[in-house]
Amino acid sequence: MSLPPEFALIARHFRGLAGEGALDLQDDAALLAPPPGLELVLAADAMVEGVHYLPDDPPETVGRKLLRVNLSDLAAMGAEPLAYLMTTALPRGTPPDWLAAFAAGLADDQRRFGLHVLGGDTVSIPGPACLSLTILGTVPPGQALRRAGARPGDDLWVSGTIGDGMLGLGVLQGRIPADPEGHLTRRYRLPEPRLALGKALRGVARAAMDVSDGLAQDLGHLCRAGGVGAVLDLAAIPLSPPAAALALEDPCWRARLAAGGDDYELLFAADPADAGRVEAAARAAGTPVARIGGFTDGHVEVTVLGPEGDAVSLPQGGWSHF
Amino acid sequence: MSLPPEFALIARHFRGLAGEGALDLQDDAALLAPPPGLELVLAADAMVEGVHYLPDDPPETVGRKLLRVNLSDLAAMGAEPLAYLMTTALPRGTPPDWLAAFAAGLADDQRRFGLHVLGGDTVSIPGPACLSLTILGTVPPGQALRRAGARPGDDLWVSGTIGDGMLGLGVLQGRIPADPEGHLTRRYRLPEPRLALGKALRGVARAAMDVSDGLAQDLGHLCRAGGVGAVLDLAAIPLSPPAAALALEDPCWRARLAAGGDDYELLFAADPADAGRVEAAARAAGTPVARIGGFTDGHVEVTVLGPEGDAVSLPQGGWSHF
Repeated sequence: MSLPPEFALIARHFRGLAGEGALDLQDDAALLAPPPGLELVLAADAMVEGVHYLPDDPPETVGRKLLRVNLSDLAAMGAEPLAYLMTTALPRGTPPDWLAAFAAGLADDQRRFGLHVLGGDTVSIPGPACLSLTILGTVPPGQALRRAGARPGDDLWVSGTIGDGMLGLGVLQGRIPADPEGHLTRRYRLPEPRLALGKALRGVARAAMDVSDGLAQDLGHLCRAGGVGAVLDLAAIPLSPPAAALALEDPCWRARLAAGGDDYELLFAADPADAGRVEAAARAAGTPVARIGGFTDGHVEVTVLGPEGDAVSLPQGGWSHF
Repeated sequence: MSLPPEFALIARHFRGLAGEGALDLQDDAALLAPPPGLELVLAADAMVEGVHYLPDDPPETVGRKLLRVNLSDLAAMGAEPLAYLMTTALPRGTPPDWLAAFAAGLADDQRRFGLHVLGGDTVSIPGPACLSLTILGTVPPGQALRRAGARPGDDLWVSGTIGDGMLGLGVLQGRIPADPEGHLTRRYRLPEPRLALGKALRGVARAAMDVSDGLAQDLGHLCRAGGVGAVLDLAAIPLSPPAAALALEDPCWRARLAAGGDDYELLFAADPADAGRVEAAARAAGTPVARIGGFTDGHVEVTVLGPEGDAVSLPQGGWSHF
């Protein structure tokens, strides 16, 4: 008795991704004995073809990006990866090669980040592919990083470099000059979840989140959660060499990069007295960090300082789907 | 400082669904202390507008159906509901009234079934709405119902009635005569997850699954998982009054109903010596069950017996997305 095509597809492409508790993707649900003594950390992010990735992005990177944007949520909470469930809504006629490469990318990243598939669903859609992933991680009780907690006087830190993902999208859409090293397009397609840094910041950062919708807009979330204001110093935002080259040509780029998106860096608050501990955590994690401003009392609002130290307004408020 | 529109939408429509551990949907992830001494049961199902529900289905029932098809997976494992995460990919311009009604339906069913939202994501899609839900439940260790386990000689049982969902879709599409009581369309839009029955069948059923893609096709999954064959007696399949009226007019309807889909009933195997225990479990759960065949040794295949007791073939193999 042969499998119906939908189940043959799952068996062929996705069963190899299944791990402990997934029951080979052959039951109605997965079974997971929760790791004793830990809290579970759970997040779900969706990606839509043409919105979160480009139709001609390599399928290997589409699967990996889907996993990594969710891993970035775990990083923001200081959690470690455990497992995931995934639903894929795919146009009929999606080539088997596309699916094989999509699954191969996931397999690579599963090994890299130490997690596996628990379950999911594969359906057809008369429209763009729509991918959804629910991730599970663990954290010792009470040690999760939270968005609330920044206090007036705290330093504002960010990891890595800002704006590369947005520039990478611009390169792929032909709006931005070429990217000879491929750094920018790689950053758009393959964000780097800062899991080691998130873990190292447990007990050090007072508040944290990941930057996905634009640095300035996401900083607004940290402010609302903490009931504080913030000052963001555009000149202090860390840039990669190609982004720095653009900003050197035209200083307006700094504001655009702070309003972009697709960074998946960690944005966090720390007591200035803990600056040494933040730097030690960053060294231990192998992830650079930079101080880009601070938190203030008074209004819940973000003040952006331009290159002359004067308050400037950003070209747009950051990414919103609606 | 006002919220960007995407976050205002989440705050307005979805925050009221959030429960313990969801952190008011304001962090990057949820925190869940796993219930001590229990295994977690996890499943994820997606629904696409125009594929799993009709564009003009009432939004209250769309949200409830999304939750219920996932609850049905918990029922199939004998699990109890705990919480869920949801991603919604919605066309820009989705009316706020649609969203409010969608969320109100979810709120109703959360109360009915005893679970709440932990987290999720809301994005835009340039195509049909695509909804994905990951459900978490609990079961005492080792007591989950599984698809594997049916033995030759076991009875084959099913809950409720078969074919109503498929007929309800036909009514809504104008292919099936009217449905004066609205029973069929209600069954298409609002499946009834058999949670009480699933729980009552722990330690009684040898194998179980939920019927979502057509009874005969899903029975094939039970056979493959157990390495057994099955005989399905069309005349014994329980039908609702409107379905029975169709089958009386034209006996071919029985085969069509067994090949349909959207039933969300439980299909399970039990030792004939346990028939009394099965019936007691059904009474305790308030869910009717019927014996509709049995399992055989030899080939992994489903033999369908027609009204004359002769083997017949079904008009189609059941639902497949690809």
